[in-house]
Amino acid sequence: MNNGKKRYWDMLKVHESVACVLYNTSRDVLIFVKQFRPGTQLKEDFIPYCAVFVYRALSTGSTTTSIEVEGQSVDWDKVSPNLGITLELCAGIVDETLNLNEIVKKEVLEECGYEIPSENFQRVTSYRTTGISGSKQTLFYAECTDQMKISEGGGLAEEGEFIDVVEMSIPQVRNLIQDEQVTRPATLLFGITWFLMNKV
Amino acid sequence: MNNGKKRYWDMLKVHESVACVLYNTSRDVLIFVKQFRPGTQLKEDFIPYCAVFVYRALSTGSTTTSIEVEGQSVDWDKVSPNLGITLELCAGIVDETLNLNEIVKKEVLEECGYEIPSENFQRVTSYRTTGISGSKQTLFYAECTDQMKISEGGGLAEEGEFIDVVEMSIPQVRNLIQDEQVTRPATLLFGITWFLMNKV
Repeated sequence: MNNGKKRYWDMLKVHESVACVLYNTSRDVLIFVKQFRPGTQLKEDFIPYCAVFVYRALSTGSTTTSIEVEGQSVDWDKVSPNLGITLELCAGIVDETLNLNEIVKKEVLEECGYEIPSENFQRVTSYRTTGISGSKQTLFYAECTDQMKISEGGGLAEEGEFIDVVEMSIPQVRNLIQDEQVTRPATLLFGITWFLMNKV
Repeated sequence: MNNGKKRYWDMLKVHESVACVLYNTSRDVLIFVKQFRPGTQLKEDFIPYCAVFVYRALSTGSTTTSIEVEGQSVDWDKVSPNLGITLELCAGIVDETLNLNEIVKKEVLEECGYEIPSENFQRVTSYRTTGISGSKQTLFYAECTDQMKISEGGGLAEEGEFIDVVEMSIPQVRNLIQDEQVTRPATLLFGITWFLMNKV
């Protein structure tokens, strides 16, 4: 209530999340995931708020779907699908009552296919986004071996996840910091620089 | 149009931005800014989408303003104001026709009070957020001296900015990576680790 008058604000429910810098010691590679994120696909200043709806429309094959942005239609044929692909740390939403080590262990198994004991996940730190949301992410570090690879990974089909597992050598990872052709978030860059400083 | 039926999505206009790792060589300190970000103040899973409206309501002193989240009223008296304070890199929106070096130079002067030649700003890299927006931020690095300090900084009053300039020594900055008591984004942590790896 403000001076007796009720006002409304749009609210966004944002879950806490976990992410993991995952290092395969058998082959000296870091493990990342590639995801489809339609929000990164449009030009700089027009970003879909509800990207997931656009994505659903596209993935259900409704090719006649048109998106209008301030009265102008977005021509999907002129938008490279590669632009919507991002390289990220393995990560997941905290939507369960499990502790964070159990949740990150579960995400690494689902997305990357490695079965790692939950006590092997080292908590690095946590941080918050400062844009419109403010959600907290806790970063972990874990080492794995080829013997721990028990499935393909790729995410849960029933949750509609489209995830590719990507392996990168240490020199490739160093290059990735400067490589602006690859769409990647600051969280990945922080994870990489933290790893290079503390584990190499 | 989807099967002849027009549908609407909420869209969020997100501007490209610049940020700067700022190092004062006269006193061996990094320069950050403290800002009030109401979005980080609420508990994990309820974040105001239009935080700016809440902020305006609070800053105009309407203490009777109540925010309801899913039918439950948020009690501002129980929310520590310190939780809404974030430590960040000096940064700004790209809303002008100037080149990025000129824009970052202007932001550093407005927020931190240092007049640094635009050619002294080294482009580090750029990255994108991967949440609901997808906006691009370009990161710069610049060194300054006490002689370049020509004003208090603090942001433009007419833009409603409330910014404190914060100086931190290299050991303090190292500690900040682990210090989860301080609300800071992954972009700040990446900026710090990049600096420690490349400039110390």
